[in-house]
Amino acid sequence: MTTHVAPFPQVDHQRALFAEGMRLECGVTIAPVAVAYRTYGRLNAARSNAILICHALTGDQYVAERHPLTGRAGWWESIVGPGKPLDTDRYFLICANVLGGCMGSTGPREEMTDPAGRPLGRPWGTDFPNVTIRDMVGAQKMLVDHLGIPRLLAVVGGSMGGMQVLEWAATYPDAVFAAAPIATAAYHSAQNIAFHEVGRAAIHADPDWKGGRYWEDGRVPAQGLSVARMVAHITYLSEQALTRKFGRRLRGAAALTFLEDVFEVESYLRHQGSTFVRRFDANSYLTITRAMDYFDLAAEHEGDLAAAFRGTATRFFVASFSSDWLFPTSESRAIVRALNAAAANVSFVEIASDKGHDAFLLEEPEFHRALGGFLAGAADRVGA
Amino acid sequence: MTTHVAPFPQVDHQRALFAEGMRLECGVTIAPVAVAYRTYGRLNAARSNAILICHALTGDQYVAERHPLTGRAGWWESIVGPGKPLDTDRYFLICANVLGGCMGSTGPREEMTDPAGRPLGRPWGTDFPNVTIRDMVGAQKMLVDHLGIPRLLAVVGGSMGGMQVLEWAATYPDAVFAAAPIATAAYHSAQNIAFHEVGRAAIHADPDWKGGRYWEDGRVPAQGLSVARMVAHITYLSEQALTRKFGRRLRGAAALTFLEDVFEVESYLRHQGSTFVRRFDANSYLTITRAMDYFDLAAEHEGDLAAAFRGTATRFFVASFSSDWLFPTSESRAIVRALNAAAANVSFVEIASDKGHDAFLLEEPEFHRALGGFLAGAADRVGA
Repeated sequence: MTTHVAPFPQVDHQRALFAEGMRLECGVTIAPVAVAYRTYGRLNAARSNAILICHALTGDQYVAERHPLTGRAGWWESIVGPGKPLDTDRYFLICANVLGGCMGSTGPREEMTDPAGRPLGRPWGTDFPNVTIRDMVGAQKMLVDHLGIPRLLAVVGGSMGGMQVLEWAATYPDAVFAAAPIATAAYHSAQNIAFHEVGRAAIHADPDWKGGRYWEDGRVPAQGLSVARMVAHITYLSEQALTRKFGRRLRGAAALTFLEDVFEVESYLRHQGSTFVRRFDANSYLTITRAMDYFDLAAEHEGDLAAAFRGTATRFFVASFSSDWLFPTSESRAIVRALNAAAANVSFVEIASDKGHDAFLLEEPEFHRALGGFLAGAADRVGA
Repeated sequence: MTTHVAPFPQVDHQRALFAEGMRLECGVTIAPVAVAYRTYGRLNAARSNAILICHALTGDQYVAERHPLTGRAGWWESIVGPGKPLDTDRYFLICANVLGGCMGSTGPREEMTDPAGRPLGRPWGTDFPNVTIRDMVGAQKMLVDHLGIPRLLAVVGGSMGGMQVLEWAATYPDAVFAAAPIATAAYHSAQNIAFHEVGRAAIHADPDWKGGRYWEDGRVPAQGLSVARMVAHITYLSEQALTRKFGRRLRGAAALTFLEDVFEVESYLRHQGSTFVRRFDANSYLTITRAMDYFDLAAEHEGDLAAAFRGTATRFFVASFSSDWLFPTSESRAIVRALNAAAANVSFVEIASDKGHDAFLLEEPEFHRALGGFLAGAADRVGA
């Protein structure tokens, strides 16, 4: 599994390899399956202090350390570290790159294998099968078993990470003492699917996409992937956040000059797009956005979301952000209603924030206090 | 002015030609200037019943008749016609294709001229100068003068059309008895600019764009323009409207099949994109989105929006739609506050609708009654 697509540098990710592979929801079996992961803190002797962090669409396992490709800080260092809500002095934190991702877990960018597990000398590319949120969680479960952890103290994640948290609690209730789905929903809405489809159309429109076989000549559909990132990035911010950050400020000009990219918000977005393509694979983007679109937890339980949680002993902490229009509070409330209907133990908080969906990644003291308190209470309960 | 870019069929638009041309805000003079327009109803003897309709970004002058390219009904037939709020039995309605447009008015798709007005045998393309909302209104003023109308009974328009209405009232107050800016704003917000920039980036990324000289080989940047239309279309609808229209319904399948374009909302968006490119020019799209982004009426008056209307005798009807998140009610309220500060005669209504920005184009009885009543009252006052 060493064939990589240019222009990504080869990174020696920490991985667990499962030779038996896994059968996906779409019916295809892939073997072997690699799960790239990172851990922080120490597992205690009772193996009772492990928290699984689930990352979002464009996140990865580098939660709280320098990113090997970008050199930037980990994506959740605001909340993960010694003495922080996800306290590395107290908990053993695990984060795995999702199945279908591009940071070392089995996905379109890794070397394709045949049904017998033999490497085929080229990346999966568009031959990588469709995966679902449940498949991602299945791969994480193999990792957690491999690490010898019978029950997670908690599963925590925002956005697509929150979808995985819900799926964990529904599929492996005995393995999850506490669950914190943040800024998420139990299904992907028509508007969310529509924005994803714009991104996919932009990738497909790029002449360098070449039907997904861009790896053959060492090029990537950079412009299409960049446009996909630009539109997604707008949905991660609130209108207030964009206005506060940029308003109608002009770039290097006091008055309108009729030049291209004259507004600061334009150059910011273009920068977001162009840096993204240096760390993310287009086929992974297509695979993972599809997985999010497919997600509909109620549909997995005959249309009854409460049935997904009936009889659960897991305790839940649901959080939303008031200015998040991608995963609005109404969708968190729908989760809470279903949990209540299932007689689950649930607390819910809507954090007042004008930062939009991205708030879950940023300095939000009230959110940090609430999540930290929930996790500490759960740890106290199990004596971790 | 007969050179046209493939694949648009040649259409013999009704046009007024102004040999003297006009000097644009960016400092460039273009001559001659053609203004393509349509009229409905009859101008009365007193010339007091003329209403100018201003179209939105992708609209045109074919307001209330079969469109010559698409064969579909006019874009505002819900509200324009005999006995309708914009009553063709009572009013003389005028609509002009905006400067920079692609339906016969001078714009990137028309034949370029030199400063002396001599045709150069190729389209303007990206050499077409930057235009502003004020420039568009200036061209319309030439047309209205040409038609011998000293004062318009009203100027009416939604979205970018509403920006033109505001600019008309601010620039030619004596020529506007009544003004109805609908679902609009006095400036384009950072979020609006951001969405436009995504569309422009998609066009620029299309290999058939060829730096804007796509007309040279008879091709158009169809995929890029289609992506631009897709993302814009999402912003025209509310989340509720998308959910009601499509939800998570699957195309030709009862259960998830893991095929491409499996959700109805995806095929709908792709259809919107692919039909748009058959009637709209990419360079016009770039030109007009830029004009909207530049728009900031307060900035034209030293940052004081009220100063734009000080001393005006024009009566205003401002309308917004509750689920419009592209031009939210808060931006209409800002217009109303400025009009109040200028001691203008203004009525304001927020229409309860879950259809989003597009509501101004659709069957909205309360909106139609309110606008119809406002116009009839104005006509009564001037005896038209």
